[in-house]
Amino acid sequence: MERPRHQGMAKNTYMRWRLPLVCLLWEVAMIVLFGVFVRFSPEADAHWEEEKREMNLTSDIENDFYFRYPSFQDVHVMIFVGFGFLMTFLKRYGFGAVGFNFLLAAFGIQWALLMQGWFHSFKSGKILIGVENLINADFCVGSVCIAFGAILGKTSPIQLLVMTLFQVTLFAVNEYILLNLLHVKDAGGSMTIHTFGAYFGLMVTRILYRPNLEQSKDKQGSVYHSDLFAMIGTLYLWMYWPSFNSAISEHGDAQHRAAINTYCSLAACVLTTMAFSSMLQKKGKLDMVHIQNATLAGGVAVGTSAEMMLTPYGSLIVGFICGIVSTVGYVYLTPFLESRLHIQDTCGIHNLHAMPGLIGGIVGAITAAAATEDVYGKEGFIKAFDFTGTYKTRTPSVQGGFQAAGIVVSLLMALAGGALVGAILKLPVWGDAAAENCFEDDIYWEVPEDEESDVYHMHNPDKPASP
Amino acid sequence: MERPRHQGMAKNTYMRWRLPLVCLLWEVAMIVLFGVFVRFSPEADAHWEEEKREMNLTSDIENDFYFRYPSFQDVHVMIFVGFGFLMTFLKRYGFGAVGFNFLLAAFGIQWALLMQGWFHSFKSGKILIGVENLINADFCVGSVCIAFGAILGKTSPIQLLVMTLFQVTLFAVNEYILLNLLHVKDAGGSMTIHTFGAYFGLMVTRILYRPNLEQSKDKQGSVYHSDLFAMIGTLYLWMYWPSFNSAISEHGDAQHRAAINTYCSLAACVLTTMAFSSMLQKKGKLDMVHIQNATLAGGVAVGTSAEMMLTPYGSLIVGFICGIVSTVGYVYLTPFLESRLHIQDTCGIHNLHAMPGLIGGIVGAITAAAATEDVYGKEGFIKAFDFTGTYKTRTPSVQGGFQAAGIVVSLLMALAGGALVGAILKLPVWGDAAAENCFEDDIYWEVPEDEESDVYHMHNPDKPASP
Amino acid sequence: MERPRHQGMAKNTYMRWRLPLVCLLWEVAMIVLFGVFVRFSPEADAHWEEEKREMNLTSDIENDFYFRYPSFQDVHVMIFVGFGFLMTFLKRYGFGAVGFNFLLAAFGIQWALLMQGWFHSFKSGKILIGVENLINADFCVGSVCIAFGAILGKTSPIQLLVMTLFQVTLFAVNEYILLNLLHVKDAGGSMTIHTFGAYFGLMVTRILYRPNLEQSKDKQGSVYHSDLFAMIGTLYLWMYWPSFNSAISEHGDAQHRAAINTYCSLAACVLTTMAFSSMLQKKGKLDMVHIQNATLAGGVAVGTSAEMMLTPYGSLIVGFICGIVSTVGYVYLTPFLESRLHIQDTCGIHNLHAMPGLIGGIVGAITAAAATEDVYGKEGFIKAFDFTGTYKTRTPSVQGGFQAAGIVVSLLMALAGGALVGAILKLPVWGDAAAENCFEDDIYWEVPEDEESDVYHMHNPDKPASP
Repeated sequence: MERPRHQGMAKNTYMRWRLPLVCLLWEVAMIVLFGVFVRFSPEADAHWEEEKREMNLTSDIENDFYFRYPSFQDVHVMIFVGFGFLMTFLKRYGFGAVGFNFLLAAFGIQWALLMQGWFHSFKSGKILIGVENLINADFCVGSVCIAFGAILGKTSPIQLLVMTLFQVTLFAVNEYILLNLLHVKDAGGSMTIHTFGAYFGLMVTRILYRPNLEQSKDKQGSVYHSDLFAMIGTLYLWMYWPSFNSAISEHGDAQHRAAINTYCSLAACVLTTMAFSSMLQKKGKLDMVHIQNATLAGGVAVGTSAEMMLTPYGSLIVGFICGIVSTVGYVYLTPFLESRLHIQDTCGIHNLHAMPGLIGGIVGAITAAAATEDVYGKEGFIKAFDFTGTYKTRTPSVQGGFQAAGIVVSLLMALAGGALVGAILKLPVWGDAAAENCFEDDIYWEVPEDEESDVYHMHNPDKPASP
Repeated sequence: MERPRHQGMAKNTYMRWRLPLVCLLWEVAMIVLFGVFVRFSPEADAHWEEEKREMNLTSDIENDFYFRYPSFQDVHVMIFVGFGFLMTFLKRYGFGAVGFNFLLAAFGIQWALLMQGWFHSFKSGKILIGVENLINADFCVGSVCIAFGAILGKTSPIQLLVMTLFQVTLFAVNEYILLNLLHVKDAGGSMTIHTFGAYFGLMVTRILYRPNLEQSKDKQGSVYHSDLFAMIGTLYLWMYWPSFNSAISEHGDAQHRAAINTYCSLAACVLTTMAFSSMLQKKGKLDMVHIQNATLAGGVAVGTSAEMMLTPYGSLIVGFICGIVSTVGYVYLTPFLESRLHIQDTCGIHNLHAMPGLIGGIVGAITAAAATEDVYGKEGFIKAFDFTGTYKTRTPSVQGGFQAAGIVVSLLMALAGGALVGAILKLPVWGDAAAENCFEDDIYWEVPEDEESDVYHMHNPDKPASP
Repeated sequence: MERPRHQGMAKNTYMRWRLPLVCLLWEVAMIVLFGVFVRFSPEADAHWEEEKREMNLTSDIENDFYFRYPSFQDVHVMIFVGFGFLMTFLKRYGFGAVGFNFLLAAFGIQWALLMQGWFHSFKSGKILIGVENLINADFCVGSVCIAFGAILGKTSPIQLLVMTLFQVTLFAVNEYILLNLLHVKDAGGSMTIHTFGAYFGLMVTRILYRPNLEQSKDKQGSVYHSDLFAMIGTLYLWMYWPSFNSAISEHGDAQHRAAINTYCSLAACVLTTMAFSSMLQKKGKLDMVHIQNATLAGGVAVGTSAEMMLTPYGSLIVGFICGIVSTVGYVYLTPFLESRLHIQDTCGIHNLHAMPGLIGGIVGAITAAAATEDVYGKEGFIKAFDFTGTYKTRTPSVQGGFQAAGIVVSLLMALAGGALVGAILKLPVWGDAAAENCFEDDIYWEVPEDEESDVYHMHNPDKPASP
């Protein structure tokens, strides 16, 4: 039996029975639960013709599909290509980045449809799903992709599937507390997605602390083309973020406004990221790590407030600040977290999601507290914050207080949940790699024998002669 | 005059006059035929203002453009980026994969607009085209892209243009038989696109069998970055497949439902693909070939039934099965087909399109046969299967029978057509490469002198000193 | 203090204080100006509920957001991924291509919102922005991305920011002259975006002529994978161009028609590009430079006329011609421009944007002049050319004349503006690199130590033994 040559602890990373077992078990469970619980929402059901008549809709275009499907597809691209490729920056972990993100997201969206369905779309014993549920499932999985960023390269696919199971569950609980109990607004998920996902992931990576990780330090960097692959992820996240923040806002002006605010915030964020990336480096050169990540912080930070009357210049200010905070975080905080707090954060999600997520929650609380009927209009004011029914008498400042409470709840849920899940993942049965084999696709993937150098000099095959 | 050094048959791959001639001839023909036949549909014509009044439409948003254009763009991405990049996995055939796919698809959509137009949109001597025609043209070309996958790396661009001409023609005939004569439902094309395209391509590659292909075996693999490029194709196909299967469904609930079913099927398919990819490999490692391809089988297999009341858990089951079937196919069937049946299937389209396409046809037939007024509602039932006019009295079980007949027709048309076209492509005038030059861009493309190794060590230009 | 080793002029490319200063200054100015001027348009404002009632709109789907947002996102992808990756073809300038394009576009869209806002959306002292403004800002920045193509690899990021500031300003002035004073139609921007952007960039690169550029000639080529990255840019530009040309057309038939015409023109263009790429090369091989660029000329050349009744076959003819003109340009004109006119055009924008842009302007003028009430219908005719108010009596032939005048104005504005801005950029304070350091990311970017060759042979880490 082969054994590791290095001094590292011998680890059994053999996946042949464990990974298939978990995948098949998880999926069979999904089929059974979907069979018992999940049906189409009225707008996706063949009875829609009758439904339409009852609701006095004159046209098929009134189907929610047409309001939200383009945004859904943009969000879908962000989850699978955006997060997937963003993490391909590592020189030899591209397969794991894209492939494991694919795996956990594909499982996560199914489990999220169930968990969120039980909380939000449960009617007479059935979960009724439509396009908005698909978006919400993608959102929920987004928080898992964020947490994946912290532990990238250091975990087995089984650990990721286990983490996804727990994190999606806790996400749904936290989301229920915020949206239903606290009646908080958070359309783009600064709190529910980013704050929750990032602190969850940071706690998990803290628990899974690997003291000998410097053994694979040479693999923690990028190569020229891996940085370009990562830019594909960055740009799709950046470009489609306006869709992310507006995807589940109210029809009409709220969706429209959320897209504009996000567009502005992201634009400003690029400039301050570039400025500080150059300023904080002795030679004044730009660092791809910052451009790939900190440019996105502006999208995170208007996640709560984008659908409110933040105004375009307010968005610019938020983006301005977050580009700075995030870039400074990469330069000073990430090394500090690793050396002092033993938080090994592969992708720097603390800078891209945690801090901007908190800022986003705070900006949302302030924007809500500052709302007036003058700015929103009488009807717009009620519609924007859904001050109806039980919440008819809630005032903006009270809403601001609840928004602030939402931040705290998300943070606590994330830290407690991350600690719990981290402890579970620490069990020595999941097949994670030894420290010296981290950030290396070869452990879990068939990697092609790379004959590039040969191939590159193979350019003189038999050429046909010119006639 | 230079001559091949290897023992292979000397082949004249010189394209200078042949390729331009075919391209220009084909395109001039298109211009003439478009000039004679093609005009705008009423919804794209400047007379729309009057049309709108006549049809009592109150808003411009009722224009079919707004129902279908976002889906069209997603499908467009699947054809050009999805298929194009999926095939870049070969280490030295990336230009050919993306470039020839671009060429044949750009020609194919024009010819498809004509062929499908004559069958479906012909009014008073003119073909009237709108956004739905563009989608259908992209669909038709999709079947050619599938067939291209089987012969990837082994054919000249002229052969591909000739094949496109014939395959699009036969596609349109087959589609006419299915949709109009058999009155079969097949919105996502399990039968018309996948079954037809795949068996057509497999037959062509069978006829073009190359006994000495092991001479270029070293070029049939991937390198690290070519596998990442291929994942771009995979993910765009996977993410946008809900748009593919819903793009030409009826407005409203049918489009909505088709997207949800496809989303579910694809999610399940990822998990079983990962499970079996690991299980079937001795070391338990994941194989990029499976992840790149078999994860998509779930989309193929709900191509017929996605717009029906398949239900989300039904979709999960279909995806579950297809991930397994497709991965097992890659491991066991592809080598068998090559060694025993002399079918050299470069991309494994038998596993990704042929088998899942057949399954999709069968699932569609069963779902149709099982339809009841109870599940669909009285109006929904008639609308879903278009049981009006001549088909007013058709029952679900009869419909199921016709659906099954559609599979058989598609299969036979594909095999007969593929044999015919394969024979034509075998003529020694099209400039295909010798066996030892297959899977090598250098035959048909200017390939850059690769100085990477030099460049990679060129990082110390004159640096400005810090002030 | 280190000094350049070569004979080239020593240049101070140190960015540490200059780049941050410009970025922060620019962005603070944006925040102040947005604070003073920019507010939401009625359709994005929370008062929309009341607005809707006043406008008698019965559904939220009538919000312009739903007419234009999908097209906006496609255009957004073209600007950031399309242009960004198209320019990654250089072997060692991928970071600069994607990264500087990101920087200038993110700044440019903010300044464009202001400039275009003052001219077109200024009401009672405020610029009111909605989704159409976002599209127009992206369009405006598109012209800067085009100009960037001419000077790619030869300028500092500060120069690019300065150029963007001026070019956006002049763009807005030129656009105002064309659209408002001449009342010209130019929805896809053949004149305002392509002709203006290209000749502006060509003039700038002429003024910045570098006599010793052959010193970095070895870096002006591509490597295998950089050509594939560039194809990502090409394909996204090609696929989404129908959205580009239809994004700001009138609701309904005009948007629908513009997409169809562009689809047709681009399809034809691919075939003639392939034909001439092969024909003009002695060995008959295809050249990636042509495929990456000339295939797009068809989209440029229907930029003015796509929303008119150009008809599908008319579009095919335009695409047919432009594929030829553009490819011939790459082979014969680009070398001529460089050697004789001292115009160093890195990306060949003269072939992709300048000539096709002029052709597009001319095709637009002819199509407008040839318009009849018979072809457009009485109402359609008035709507298509907006022959209302002051322009009630304008005839098609007069419109054609004004269209032609628009070409001339755009050309003159571009040449004059480019000369002015080129002169400003020639000042020795902006930190551009010496000739021998052009086309090299290392000057402005932290480039990873490339250990690929090591990594590629690192594939035998400690493998777990099979049980």
